[in-house]
Amino acid sequence: MSIDSYADGTDNNDGMTSVPATDPIRTKIRQAVIDVREQTPLAQSFTNFVTINLVANAQLAAGGTAAMSYLPDDVIATAEIAGSNYINVGTLLPFFKDALPEIAYKLHKNGKTWVLDPVAAGIGETRTAILKSFRTYPPTIVRGNASEIIALDAMWGLANAEPDNPTTRPAGVEAVDEVDSAVDAAKRIARHLAKHSPTGKGAVAVSGAIDLVTDGDRVFRLPGGSAMMTKITGAGCSLGGVTATYLAVAEPLVAALAASLLYDRASEIAETRSIGPGSFQVALLDALWNVTADQVAESEINETV
Amino acid sequence: MSIDSYADGTDNNDGMTSVPATDPIRTKIRQAVIDVREQTPLAQSFTNFVTINLVANAQLAAGGTAAMSYLPDDVIATAEIAGSNYINVGTLLPFFKDALPEIAYKLHKNGKTWVLDPVAAGIGETRTAILKSFRTYPPTIVRGNASEIIALDAMWGLANAEPDNPTTRPAGVEAVDEVDSAVDAAKRIARHLAKHSPTGKGAVAVSGAIDLVTDGDRVFRLPGGSAMMTKITGAGCSLGGVTATYLAVAEPLVAALAASLLYDRASEIAETRSIGPGSFQVALLDALWNVTADQVAESEINETV
Amino acid sequence: MSIDSYADGTDNNDGMTSVPATDPIRTKIRQAVIDVREQTPLAQSFTNFVTINLVANAQLAAGGTAAMSYLPDDVIATAEIAGSNYINVGTLLPFFKDALPEIAYKLHKNGKTWVLDPVAAGIGETRTAILKSFRTYPPTIVRGNASEIIALDAMWGLANAEPDNPTTRPAGVEAVDEVDSAVDAAKRIARHLAKHSPTGKGAVAVSGAIDLVTDGDRVFRLPGGSAMMTKITGAGCSLGGVTATYLAVAEPLVAALAASLLYDRASEIAETRSIGPGSFQVALLDALWNVTADQVAESEINETV
Repeated sequence: MSIDSYADGTDNNDGMTSVPATDPIRTKIRQAVIDVREQTPLAQSFTNFVTINLVANAQLAAGGTAAMSYLPDDVIATAEIAGSNYINVGTLLPFFKDALPEIAYKLHKNGKTWVLDPVAAGIGETRTAILKSFRTYPPTIVRGNASEIIALDAMWGLANAEPDNPTTRPAGVEAVDEVDSAVDAAKRIARHLAKHSPTGKGAVAVSGAIDLVTDGDRVFRLPGGSAMMTKITGAGCSLGGVTATYLAVAEPLVAALAASLLYDRASEIAETRSIGPGSFQVALLDALWNVTADQVAESEINETV
Repeated sequence: MSIDSYADGTDNNDGMTSVPATDPIRTKIRQAVIDVREQTPLAQSFTNFVTINLVANAQLAAGGTAAMSYLPDDVIATAEIAGSNYINVGTLLPFFKDALPEIAYKLHKNGKTWVLDPVAAGIGETRTAILKSFRTYPPTIVRGNASEIIALDAMWGLANAEPDNPTTRPAGVEAVDEVDSAVDAAKRIARHLAKHSPTGKGAVAVSGAIDLVTDGDRVFRLPGGSAMMTKITGAGCSLGGVTATYLAVAEPLVAALAASLLYDRASEIAETRSIGPGSFQVALLDALWNVTADQVAESEINETV
Repeated sequence: MSIDSYADGTDNNDGMTSVPATDPIRTKIRQAVIDVREQTPLAQSFTNFVTINLVANAQLAAGGTAAMSYLPDDVIATAEIAGSNYINVGTLLPFFKDALPEIAYKLHKNGKTWVLDPVAAGIGETRTAILKSFRTYPPTIVRGNASEIIALDAMWGLANAEPDNPTTRPAGVEAVDEVDSAVDAAKRIARHLAKHSPTGKGAVAVSGAIDLVTDGDRVFRLPGGSAMMTKITGAGCSLGGVTATYLAVAEPLVAALAASLLYDRASEIAETRSIGPGSFQVALLDALWNVTADQVAESEINETV
């Protein structure tokens, strides 16, 4: 991205417009980055064993604090002192099948916000049963890749629930990458989340070559980032964790945008400072720590007209 | 710290005195650092999933070897060939509730030493039940932060068990940081551990801006270290693991001091060689490997008069 | 190793000969390295919690992709889209005792290939029960250290099953390091694997100062590598994972050779670019990414005559 390109608000002739420098959403994004660093909010995670360390370190590098739990009594007790929560269904153990629906129900009952990463949605009966159960007591934000978002939308049967909003391509926008294939699913999920959210608001982030973020109404596309993100494990998982960190201080749409933009800017810096995936991950954590709130807030952001 | 400041044995006018260069404890600390590097002792860990990798890598970087287990039959079989053990109650699974009391009992019965990290003591019913159960068959060393040490002391009801040693501030020492708030609890726990220890000795380490280490009698304060330790996950957990590594070659008080001092010196070096939490963790492991026994043993150490 | 030394095919006067530059096995090794980078095959892992992150990152750095699972329904569903699989018995949980034999049976029934890392073979009743159960539905490749290979051979009773092949030293080859003590066990295991393999082929890799790889017939020794590999956790585990990555594109013997040689060359580079175990692990992942197919294929390889 370049500073020149973001601020003009012009229509890009592809059904999208640059979000202008004066859009209030940029002020809120900047403030979220600052607030996390000043308030060091606790976001609790129930996450997979592969990338749990990176999730915690990324939350710390973004300025928050981390706590990881699996037992329902642990999770619910910790949620009382946490600003938000994160659930990632990556590496399931047998007791997760009962524990996760119980946790989702209790978070809902206690008015707690949480981010879901539906890792590998569609693979395995247990995972499907768990993800389906979240329909009734859903998260506040869902972050996944395009195929996971599409799978979750199908599991929850949201296209049928919104007969006036069937799956269609947005007019004038070709599916230039896989993220676009998930735009309708993402919007439907976001509206479903908002309907059940403690604050009446929800958001969905679809990660890809160009990230997509929506609250069910506005749809933003975030270009940039680094292809090296696909060469380390946990880029997406830790982005989900950092999204929860921001959710502790900001509304869902702002949290999802701030986290995705922070990752895009940090990964671009990390790519220039590394020679392979080992040094890239180290540089990514350093960059999450060093990127400024202005760098994040002044990012190129495109919005569907 | 500076080399000049540690060796004079003068009273610092705050109820503390610098431990002189000639104090035998320094010789023992130096020897512990050397012995670990020469004997590469095995310390076994039952530890949380967030930082398990860093615990193992820190034990290896300090010169020891590592083995991680969860099943009681695994843990007890491995304890037969290990020099000491480490239990960290960070991320509990359902079977831990029965497994951990069983393991503590069998380690006690077999005369094995172990270090406890009571992570998040006070949060969750299951964790509380597990930690309470350790009162009867306690560890040899406890390492935690101030609030965890205070919580463990309360769970074990040690203030009531020692009516002549109620909770008071040590005379002449204001609570300049949170570690001081845990000094009485730490001393009571250390005496309780010693009473049940296979060797009649125990120790408690309280980590903070200034670390505190006590065997229930002598109380040491270790200034220095790096604030970046709070910006990576597992600084404390891995210090607990390295404390177990030292416990394989040294008495509890020496092991707790050597490990905390090693970490303080290594983290100071790592801070100067890093630009964020990613490079800090890499530099920390390198420094654990490269810090000399003299650097550790010549550290500034203050003792309550 | 040096390029000069590998290509002459001369007898080294110790019962071994250098594999000549024209040996077809070198062409296959080079091709395996290239194919992984071009095809980015998925290798699924059921692996321990200590090094699970490094396993995934190493598979990605070698050019593959990674997915980690524990529930049998997850593992079997993922195996349908994976090119091969990896099972590592490092940190056992209670349900593994039933899950792992079930998974091994279903992988066999579905004709799927997999790599076994028999970590800590011989320690703990549960681990022994699991490893014994694999005799009937065995992996395609076993990778371990000498003592693990010897323990597995004994558990499976293979010396008794091959009365004409009792445990003896190969003529003319003294046990210059511990790997040599496992050569007979390794050959017996490799023949057992081949007998049950979907393709009729199997291989065993014994990691040590000099690595040994055999398909039960040919026996290769791979000098080189770095002693720093013993100072990070997961060097062996992640080599097992990368072996599975290569098994997705190559026959077992070639996969085992390519992975071990990649690790030897990468670890040599990493040693020159690091000052301790922290920077060594970072440099190892970078080197796995950057080592060329030619560097791997032109390695010094010795074969027992």
